[in-house]
Amino acid sequence: MADYASLVEPRLGNTIGRWISFGSACRPFGLVALSPDTRIDGNGDWGCGYNLADNEIVGFSHIHDWQSGGILVMPVIGDVSATAGPAGFKSPFSRDTEFCKPGYHRVHLDRYAITAELTATARVGIHRYTFPSDLPSSQPAALLIDLASQCGPCTMLSASLSQLNARTFEGHVVNGPTKRKPKPHTVHFVLTLDTDATLAPFDPSRVQARLDLGRPAAPVTIKVGVSYTSLTAARANLHTETAGKSFDVLRAEAHAEWNDALVRIVVEGGDPVRRARFYTDLYFALLGRRTVSDCTGTYIDNTGPQPLIRQIPLNAESLPRYRHFNSDAFWGAQWSLVPLWALVYPEIIDEFCHCFMDLYRNGGLIPRGPTGGNYTFVMTSAQTTPLFACALNNDLHHPANVKEVYQALRKNHFPGGLMSKAGYEHTTCQGGGIEDYIARGYIPEGLPPVAMHTNGASQTIEHAYNDWALVQLARTLGHHVDVELFTRRSRNHRNLFDPSVGFCRPRERDGSWTEPFNPLQKKGWTEANAWTFTFHSAHDIAGLIECFGSRDAFLARLETAFVLSEKQNFFAPRDHHNVVPLDFGNEPALATAHLFQLAGRPDRTQFWLRRVIDTIKAGNAPTDTWGGDEDQGIMGAWNVLVSIGLFSATGACEMPARYQLTAPFFERVTITLPAGRKLRIVASGLTPTATNYVESIMFNGAPLTALELTHADLTVGGELQVVLSPAPAGLSQRA
Amino acid sequence: MADYASLVEPRLGNTIGRWISFGSACRPFGLVALSPDTRIDGNGDWGCGYNLADNEIVGFSHIHDWQSGGILVMPVIGDVSATAGPAGFKSPFSRDTEFCKPGYHRVHLDRYAITAELTATARVGIHRYTFPSDLPSSQPAALLIDLASQCGPCTMLSASLSQLNARTFEGHVVNGPTKRKPKPHTVHFVLTLDTDATLAPFDPSRVQARLDLGRPAAPVTIKVGVSYTSLTAARANLHTETAGKSFDVLRAEAHAEWNDALVRIVVEGGDPVRRARFYTDLYFALLGRRTVSDCTGTYIDNTGPQPLIRQIPLNAESLPRYRHFNSDAFWGAQWSLVPLWALVYPEIIDEFCHCFMDLYRNGGLIPRGPTGGNYTFVMTSAQTTPLFACALNNDLHHPANVKEVYQALRKNHFPGGLMSKAGYEHTTCQGGGIEDYIARGYIPEGLPPVAMHTNGASQTIEHAYNDWALVQLARTLGHHVDVELFTRRSRNHRNLFDPSVGFCRPRERDGSWTEPFNPLQKKGWTEANAWTFTFHSAHDIAGLIECFGSRDAFLARLETAFVLSEKQNFFAPRDHHNVVPLDFGNEPALATAHLFQLAGRPDRTQFWLRRVIDTIKAGNAPTDTWGGDEDQGIMGAWNVLVSIGLFSATGACEMPARYQLTAPFFERVTITLPAGRKLRIVASGLTPTATNYVESIMFNGAPLTALELTHADLTVGGELQVVLSPAPAGLSQRA
Repeated sequence: MADYASLVEPRLGNTIGRWISFGSACRPFGLVALSPDTRIDGNGDWGCGYNLADNEIVGFSHIHDWQSGGILVMPVIGDVSATAGPAGFKSPFSRDTEFCKPGYHRVHLDRYAITAELTATARVGIHRYTFPSDLPSSQPAALLIDLASQCGPCTMLSASLSQLNARTFEGHVVNGPTKRKPKPHTVHFVLTLDTDATLAPFDPSRVQARLDLGRPAAPVTIKVGVSYTSLTAARANLHTETAGKSFDVLRAEAHAEWNDALVRIVVEGGDPVRRARFYTDLYFALLGRRTVSDCTGTYIDNTGPQPLIRQIPLNAESLPRYRHFNSDAFWGAQWSLVPLWALVYPEIIDEFCHCFMDLYRNGGLIPRGPTGGNYTFVMTSAQTTPLFACALNNDLHHPANVKEVYQALRKNHFPGGLMSKAGYEHTTCQGGGIEDYIARGYIPEGLPPVAMHTNGASQTIEHAYNDWALVQLARTLGHHVDVELFTRRSRNHRNLFDPSVGFCRPRERDGSWTEPFNPLQKKGWTEANAWTFTFHSAHDIAGLIECFGSRDAFLARLETAFVLSEKQNFFAPRDHHNVVPLDFGNEPALATAHLFQLAGRPDRTQFWLRRVIDTIKAGNAPTDTWGGDEDQGIMGAWNVLVSIGLFSATGACEMPARYQLTAPFFERVTITLPAGRKLRIVASGLTPTATNYVESIMFNGAPLTALELTHADLTVGGELQVVLSPAPAGLSQRA
Repeated sequence: MADYASLVEPRLGNTIGRWISFGSACRPFGLVALSPDTRIDGNGDWGCGYNLADNEIVGFSHIHDWQSGGILVMPVIGDVSATAGPAGFKSPFSRDTEFCKPGYHRVHLDRYAITAELTATARVGIHRYTFPSDLPSSQPAALLIDLASQCGPCTMLSASLSQLNARTFEGHVVNGPTKRKPKPHTVHFVLTLDTDATLAPFDPSRVQARLDLGRPAAPVTIKVGVSYTSLTAARANLHTETAGKSFDVLRAEAHAEWNDALVRIVVEGGDPVRRARFYTDLYFALLGRRTVSDCTGTYIDNTGPQPLIRQIPLNAESLPRYRHFNSDAFWGAQWSLVPLWALVYPEIIDEFCHCFMDLYRNGGLIPRGPTGGNYTFVMTSAQTTPLFACALNNDLHHPANVKEVYQALRKNHFPGGLMSKAGYEHTTCQGGGIEDYIARGYIPEGLPPVAMHTNGASQTIEHAYNDWALVQLARTLGHHVDVELFTRRSRNHRNLFDPSVGFCRPRERDGSWTEPFNPLQKKGWTEANAWTFTFHSAHDIAGLIECFGSRDAFLARLETAFVLSEKQNFFAPRDHHNVVPLDFGNEPALATAHLFQLAGRPDRTQFWLRRVIDTIKAGNAPTDTWGGDEDQGIMGAWNVLVSIGLFSATGACEMPARYQLTAPFFERVTITLPAGRKLRIVASGLTPTATNYVESIMFNGAPLTALELTHADLTVGGELQVVLSPAPAGLSQRA
């Protein structure tokens, strides 16, 4: 098997540094993400973690997750105290001596002349430290453990550390609440070494401790088993995943597991840098959304007044039937993670549905961005409805009681559900505007400022799409009244379209338009503007065209959006969505290029996709970017889909889901489907120097008459023979 | 072996009904106390639980503990819903058909014609319900489970219940915070039946559920395993304690365990009612202070920002080395539980010390009244210092690090420790007055009203005694500076003595006496008055005599206190401590009778003890009382000690502890000491019709010259031959 993992650049994009965006020593969807931290307390999340702008390492911490962090360790030489914190024990390092690939990270700590190597299993971080030989007795080696300093988004409320025997230590650390996460949660760990260590006395009210290692004759290997539920589970995780295995064996396992995951999509031909970038993108699509359940299937439920340890059902082999995950928002996942996972990693979709239904049963709502066993209510609207619609309509999830699932989803579309809650609205139900949405057909501006993202206009448009996703499921299940109700609601975005300006725009409670209006203004819009959100409703192309008055008017305005955006490199710096119509570094614009195709101009889709990719998504160096913020796999998954020429502008919700076909960037793409079936995409006529347009496609020997296939078609497998041409021809010319 | 358990009247005193005071189906110190509830929501604690004033049963709940309750079940017939709550499913019952003995309770539910029998292991409640034979199919049997209604002191915040198979159910319920308990805590349970049952749909936001049982052909046995940590532990507790055992076997086990505990003190001769009452008293001394740890030694630590499951160290047989306990205050325990346990149940003292040191390590303070893994700060001062002083000075507890224990105790005697905290002062350190106590030698009135019991005068006197207890330990450990420091502080009660009135009295910050003064006033005193607290300081008889000017003046005032108190039957109704000088139904007066003896008049001690006992502690019917509130073994233990003629007015703190000897109420008392040694007390000349005075005592063949022996003397074992006379003679006449 070719070594795809070695092509991945895990550091890509960490010029901005974000706590959740970087992972080196970790497994796909793994709980532990062990990596060097260059800053651990800068603004909580942004700038934090591994940042390419820095040249000092403050330690190695085990969790880099959505609103979660902890267990910072640092090997040192000589009389260095843990109580000085990261500023006291940090070390310069050089990127010349750094090596970083999926599942493995090596750095040299110049201050101490220590070589640090990191690898991981799903729930265990493994360290190997090579200390200088012949240390003088006055300069012993030690491992510092800092459980007190802020570590990522959370300040640490309390912690413990105790020594069980010469080589075993255990403890816990409590991540405090944040603006985004209303409750504390606890991380438990068991740490073992392959050499004797002594825990020096420390202040238990502020656990910054030193494990003295003497003068180790050989490299020291340390294993840290982690659990969100208990010490017992941390011990079980450590034992189950690493017992009897050396650092090198575990490193090789990690590399192999990443290759096993990446090899589900083999791309060949085309530009070698783009191929490498493709695997970096795929890596990110499988990196975040981390496991929080234990190897035995226990997980923490923190939705109630007290945390509870609950149990995931076991299968016939007594293994958990699925995992639980922390997760940033599913905002924009309909155009990225959901269609990708649905096609290539359907088991992940199934696991998320199980996990989210458990949260529903525990806490009363299908969640938005759960972490530490509780809700975070990150971003807006009912983003998980499209996920479930995709899962149930495409045979990816088989609940015991589909009626219960439907009721759970439906609840989010009414007052008290997620459509009531704006960003991080933990205790009230006023910022989502659902009452206005139902009563008026749109959400006016001026919602109570109870939370973030209380923008009436963009919430209207998002609710409408999620309503449409629910319709897809209601139709399948025969809920005809709901089909009618939610179809009507799914057109509410039209109520914001002002023909006099040719945009959707914010509206007041009395029905008047919010003045003044500028299509690039921030007011009314969540991380975007009127340009982007006017073109958000890919589920209702006919309605959009109707709003604009004609297909040509619609296409002309869309073309203008791209022309203007290219001048700004299709990218808005964070919090500057007023500088560019379409930001391909952020979620809301991700389907806009495909609207051409849905409106009968596939050539313009292919043209602009190529421009966007070439502008901001082409390189594979650490300093290359995703445009903006990777957002736990969203940007990676989008690039993967676009690169292989498959996309679902409607979020893969239908039965069966619709996928749009565009020109792949590679000559051969081989996707391994469930049960070992293969889907091959073979492109002829690929040129690196110009836009490639799809001229014709044969699918399993028959010519396609449109650039679209369904999930059911694609998962049969077989071969797509794609003929490309440097100018629009054939299928790319048709409506 | 004689059947002492059958002599016990568990219902005694429940005319007042208190949540923590009643236990029938339970084991000594058991976690589960399963019993019929006649009220579960009346004022939280007082009046609540099993109340002799009531004639309806609202259900059977499993936990009757300090600030803890839960898992209410009720068997019913026919179409009775759980959602109506106790008012809807309650049933009348008759005390004619009731049978209640330690470890077993049987009642007949007249509304349903169901016979309900209850027994328990330490952590499992076992029910056997005999339903009417030949139930019509329209009237099926069912078990209602109400996890939503207030159950004792706590409202229930949330709960879950789910069916695992036809005969297994599991769930949890969260006890909300109370004024007395700052945080919620969770109770987990697993319920099994010996017949198939079906869980009907219920509202998960308010768990009041119905298990349909059909028409059972035989009595139905239900086992409910309980844990404060997790479902896993609840299952382990259920399995370990009851697997394969029938109701009758478990009932017999419970009876045998109670007999094993009670038989450590065998009393013979004397009045048969008093003998029975003696075992009731002893039962109460072993009933409360309930276990909270699991059979595997896991326990919940709720002192930090999140609950943690921690592990008690295991012994060579892999069993927990001790248990953790919930506990009401140790206020007054120095005159009841501590001297009794120290002599006859020393392993309990050892376990409490371990448990309290774990709480110190977890939460930073040796606790006052822990529950649900956290502090409650019930009552005042550092009540556990005498417990530890007794344990360490009398070889009952062997900590790994005695310096750590001493530092932990000492911390409570300074600002930030328990002497800073008045009753239920969870978040501040202002109500205990320790800064004033140190600076002025007394605590003035007018402390900030941050909590309950912020009475400067009684806190001064209590702190002084606890300081004296610490001195006993400081001396043993060679902390000479502390001996001097705390000896000086232990005399601070003298600073409140006003010779012009002949009482300790409240004092102002400027040194002046608080006006007006009335020795029966409540102001300044916690649940007592100036009469009681003036005579509180048994540790400093010389100082008291000095205050009064002469021994005669002291004895005269003490005599007056008893004469006046007898007119009120030595008893103050709750919150009416302004009606009687000395209330033998409450803690602060418990050593007053023994002050005569310490001041050289043992005859008056014996005279008044007999009066008090005959007046309020003689009967053994349900409607008899302990005077006031039993307070989790305090009153029972006091009666036990007085009844066998042993007492320690200084709280058994010294090395070795001093025990005062008085006339036993029985002809023969046989105490089984550790390692099977026996201490026999054989009284000759006992008369039921008059006060008995000790004329002479031979101890192991040698005559005593004073009415006092030490813990070291007594635990050697042997025989005390006590010669009694109806008039003061011999030893009872001496100083």
